[in-house]
Amino acid sequence: MKKSIVLGIDIGGTNTVYGFIESGGSIILHEEIATHGSMPILDLVGRISEKANAFLSDNLDYSLIGIGIGAPNGNHYTGRIQDPPNLSWGDVDIVSIFAKHFNCEVVLTNDANAAALGEKNFGLAKNMKDFVVVTLGTGLGSGIFSSGKLLYGHDGFAGEMGHISIDYNGRLCNCGNHGCLESYASSSGIKTTVEELIIEHPSNKFLKSLAKEKIDGLLIDKAFDDGEKIARKIYEYTGEKLGQGLAIVSNLLSPEAFIFYGGFSNAGERILSSARTTMNQNLINASEGDIKLLQSGLPKGQAGILGAASLIWSK
Amino acid sequence: MKKSIVLGIDIGGTNTVYGFIESGGSIILHEEIATHGSMPILDLVGRISEKANAFLSDNLDYSLIGIGIGAPNGNHYTGRIQDPPNLSWGDVDIVSIFAKHFNCEVVLTNDANAAALGEKNFGLAKNMKDFVVVTLGTGLGSGIFSSGKLLYGHDGFAGEMGHISIDYNGRLCNCGNHGCLESYASSSGIKTTVEELIIEHPSNKFLKSLAKEKIDGLLIDKAFDDGEKIARKIYEYTGEKLGQGLAIVSNLLSPEAFIFYGGFSNAGERILSSARTTMNQNLINASEGDIKLLQSGLPKGQAGILGAASLIWSK
Repeated sequence: MKKSIVLGIDIGGTNTVYGFIESGGSIILHEEIATHGSMPILDLVGRISEKANAFLSDNLDYSLIGIGIGAPNGNHYTGRIQDPPNLSWGDVDIVSIFAKHFNCEVVLTNDANAAALGEKNFGLAKNMKDFVVVTLGTGLGSGIFSSGKLLYGHDGFAGEMGHISIDYNGRLCNCGNHGCLESYASSSGIKTTVEELIIEHPSNKFLKSLAKEKIDGLLIDKAFDDGEKIARKIYEYTGEKLGQGLAIVSNLLSPEAFIFYGGFSNAGERILSSARTTMNQNLINASEGDIKLLQSGLPKGQAGILGAASLIWSK
Repeated sequence: MKKSIVLGIDIGGTNTVYGFIESGGSIILHEEIATHGSMPILDLVGRISEKANAFLSDNLDYSLIGIGIGAPNGNHYTGRIQDPPNLSWGDVDIVSIFAKHFNCEVVLTNDANAAALGEKNFGLAKNMKDFVVVTLGTGLGSGIFSSGKLLYGHDGFAGEMGHISIDYNGRLCNCGNHGCLESYASSSGIKTTVEELIIEHPSNKFLKSLAKEKIDGLLIDKAFDDGEKIARKIYEYTGEKLGQGLAIVSNLLSPEAFIFYGGFSNAGERILSSARTTMNQNLINASEGDIKLLQSGLPKGQAGILGAASLIWSK
């Protein structure tokens, strides 16, 4: 008898990860490819299909039972990716497109929800019922578990923690509103922080090196560890703003933990330490230390595909 | 055979409402008494017990099967009222106290959760799965339903919407933090607004009359309807701040509706109109009009006792 297998896909603004996953969470194949968000969606679908079909032809003992997809602005209820930022696809019925290519069940959720499902089924949140996964990348996303269930809201769009305002007189966000958490605590937010700091410190070499290109978190991590004052200032400020957002979410949802995932979560305690201090100062009920801030233990790119695949496995 | 009946109790900072409720939500007896929060808790328990026992002795066809209680800082998980503001009781195991007096099952939740349960079982939210009940009184409380379930969080303290900050540089709240929604959108918040406006308009008679005593919402409602400019200013400002809070909650939870309950929710559209405008300006996904702002249709004091009683009936 053939072994069942699920294709998990995590679509990102820059790269897409996909992999074949067995029911226990073993990843059989695992690849990262460029998303090419400026091309039509069928370009990405075609490239994934080709590789996936090749794998299935070479591995006849496996039978594909479904596809789970995590994507920015992916709506679990409608099966559509709706006007994702950084991708030119508009509003696409991605579930139907994949179902047509593979003739199997396809389920969609957004990328942060997929990461949260990955943590719940295979990561740090295995024994948690109330937690929030925060994805820190170009933007800031979140997947919220409450009473053991992923929270979708009325229309499937719950979890937009990146767009809660921590300062209605604050930074203009890409979304058009002011003071969104994402405009401070994300790599694009850090870029703005660097630009603001350069005005204060026009001759600082480290800031100049950062401002040249896309923000490189590892570069700031290293400078922070080397005692570079401006690197500490960047992360303290970012952590303070992040902590303000965490306090708002905590007062509303009382989670057991926040789990941080994605590129710039690698900074870990360098940012989380000041985030924790600010969060604790602004809680109404919880005592200091009640709410844990944790770094995901899942390898880069895996939480998303594991979580996306679990949409099928948990059916 | 005796008919089953539940005692529903809604403890407030100033007054307490209790009533006997049948399984379909019919209220048989319904009384409001002073809470006397400066007296020991046993004073209130004694007065309720006396009246309730008298009722049960006079109505031998009823059998008390349980007591549901809603109270400020009431924790569903621990059965304790934990250091409620405006009440001098400290941390009391109210479930055990009532269970000892009545020898039946007793279940506790906080006052805003009780109101939310009332709306879900007997009010506007009967057909809703995702909604938030906001209680507007001396403070601002909230009970959150998500996917058809009341959201308690890890420790039973979820739903502190009154203490999400809408301005970390804003007003000092009674809780010690800054910019809490409650410090703007509640009767105590409006009192502060009036005090601030008096500095700007020292000779305004309407403001002076308001500042003298406890804020009377009906007085502001009437002045608003009569075209008094300052009354309009008070409600527009309050609505704007409320709308900022609603936008934060909406971006996080995507509810179908907010339902407003409690004394100062009587202002209705006088406040909700500007709240709606501000909320809609700050949403990331929902289109204008997607999220409804509604006034509770349940009579004063009933949502709390109906919801508290449903804690027993829904078992």
